[in-house]
Amino acid sequence: MKAAAAAEVDALLVTHMPDVRYLTGFTGSSAALAIAGGKAVLFTDGRYRTQAKAEVKGLRVVVEQKAAATLAVEWLVASDVARCGFDSGQMSVAALERVRKSVPGARRRSFFVAVEGLVAKLREVKDSDEIARMKKAAALGCKLFEDVLEFVVAGVPEAEVAAHLEFKARMAGAEAMSFETIVAGGARSALPHGKASAAKLPRRGFCTMDFGVVLDGYCSDMTRTVHLGKPDQREWDVYHSVLEAQKAAIRAVRAGVTCADVDEAARSVLREAKLDKYFSHSTGHGVGLEIHEGPRVATKQMQRLEPGMVITIEPGVYLPEEFGIRIEDMVLVTRDGGEVLTAASPKAWMQL
Amino acid sequence: MKAAAAAEVDALLVTHMPDVRYLTGFTGSSAALAIAGGKAVLFTDGRYRTQAKAEVKGLRVVVEQKAAATLAVEWLVASDVARCGFDSGQMSVAALERVRKSVPGARRRSFFVAVEGLVAKLREVKDSDEIARMKKAAALGCKLFEDVLEFVVAGVPEAEVAAHLEFKARMAGAEAMSFETIVAGGARSALPHGKASAAKLPRRGFCTMDFGVVLDGYCSDMTRTVHLGKPDQREWDVYHSVLEAQKAAIRAVRAGVTCADVDEAARSVLREAKLDKYFSHSTGHGVGLEIHEGPRVATKQMQRLEPGMVITIEPGVYLPEEFGIRIEDMVLVTRDGGEVLTAASPKAWMQL
Repeated sequence: MKAAAAAEVDALLVTHMPDVRYLTGFTGSSAALAIAGGKAVLFTDGRYRTQAKAEVKGLRVVVEQKAAATLAVEWLVASDVARCGFDSGQMSVAALERVRKSVPGARRRSFFVAVEGLVAKLREVKDSDEIARMKKAAALGCKLFEDVLEFVVAGVPEAEVAAHLEFKARMAGAEAMSFETIVAGGARSALPHGKASAAKLPRRGFCTMDFGVVLDGYCSDMTRTVHLGKPDQREWDVYHSVLEAQKAAIRAVRAGVTCADVDEAARSVLREAKLDKYFSHSTGHGVGLEIHEGPRVATKQMQRLEPGMVITIEPGVYLPEEFGIRIEDMVLVTRDGGEVLTAASPKAWMQL
Repeated sequence: MKAAAAAEVDALLVTHMPDVRYLTGFTGSSAALAIAGGKAVLFTDGRYRTQAKAEVKGLRVVVEQKAAATLAVEWLVASDVARCGFDSGQMSVAALERVRKSVPGARRRSFFVAVEGLVAKLREVKDSDEIARMKKAAALGCKLFEDVLEFVVAGVPEAEVAAHLEFKARMAGAEAMSFETIVAGGARSALPHGKASAAKLPRRGFCTMDFGVVLDGYCSDMTRTVHLGKPDQREWDVYHSVLEAQKAAIRAVRAGVTCADVDEAARSVLREAKLDKYFSHSTGHGVGLEIHEGPRVATKQMQRLEPGMVITIEPGVYLPEEFGIRIEDMVLVTRDGGEVLTAASPKAWMQL
């Protein structure tokens, strides 16, 4: 790998499970992958014996009742590796100390080389197979939003809306939700991370739904904010400012553009409307095998978009104790623009 | 704190969210807690402004658009801290490098002191309020198992059973599932971690269900294995060996006993039945705000049980490509025994 060469290492230790899955196909929850001298070996424990052999093709699988990372490092040491890269963003200080003990004293000092986000970097750009899966996940998200609207009714607890959404997701083949479903009604919509609670939806006010499914390993992520009852002018205006900001950011998406530019496209619309100080988070993030991946679509992020990246565009405005609005799509970066993967869900003002 | 004194530190940096929640009540997904000189300050970002102020009582909350851990370290540095303990099991190598940059050069070398599992240790023993919540979570688990049995029918996809279970959990007030629900039928029951899939339940064979709910922050965890159709002698025998092993381990639970002894109580029954080599994991683990906590109930674990610990007892036997059986209860350690929190769910042979 180019990145490994740049870090001047002759081996890699991969312990972050989404990275292991990306490189090997193994979907279990515990394993370590060692790569050196043109060979790769996956280490896991007895719980995954059958599963690992079924899922992993074209590389050796070793099953032993011992910490997988330790087994991997023992193999790397025996393979005469001098410098082994590991993802410093994904390995704890204690875990590194533990595996370091498997390296003989004389080689220990220079053995491990911190390389942050090596595999994560590879994962940012999706190949056509991944894009196909992400389109399916996004399409399922849109379908679920449509199906769950019948439950978005005054007096229904937020958690009940989430329950129906998640039930339908499962029945449609989702392996899991991408994250804890957000259903936030009335003043709770002003909580950017208002997980579905026992609170009942209001007779009048917004309801923000932010959710995602995991389908064939890949995450979807979308947010819609609908209104129950008749809005006042301010609610109407703020909604349309957020929508304008979200559309502006989507229009800014194109290979070669910096993430900061995309963020600024949304932020400047809200600045114009004097709402930017209520936009308390970044514009978006990459999504894939994990719900939060690179790149970060935020201020000062000078990383440039590349074709095949899938990012979220999700500006929001939160007026404490009043209401909040967030609108989010998944967008595939293409050579000359962005393809909205969640376009099947309308985001024009929706009054229920 | 005693443990902090033992580590010879004059401050603590807490970044693992379940630890932060345990110490402050904050339930958001991003924050850092700094403790020094008898003061504690919680740092978080704009997304959690309203929520943090509502949830956190009796300590200062600082909201800023900057990494919470960095803010916390800047405060610790300004508070003239000399040696700051951090949980090396919960902080990545990269995260430590990042916050280290906020410490002035002259103080940097000795500023951070690795202390593994400091708060985790406190969390192992539950107080009466926590035990009350865990009993409720466990009781809900039992209720759900009863309610979902009507869907455990030949031809129904595993994921559909999971869908009904999770729907009922939500409707009953669960905030989330403790982990990805396991429903594994027929030969798939031989996968210790067989997450509910599209596979249909067999006309004849076992179905293992391992699931938990999060209720008021606390996790439940239980497993039952039922049989569809008429069993053969071997299925019957292996089931009863696992059940015997599980009961033996529960009988071994008592304050002062080592975790290894409890594990051995289960393992020796399976050894006697010549099934121990198919018992490919440890007997159990602590459970609380997280699904996996200390102590580890496994071979060689010399940690002694203490009153107020809540552990799982979950031996299993997995015959590759044939079938698997696991039976799991949550057990509260008491001075003179163990109280089974999931006793409401029968674990005698169940034929559907």
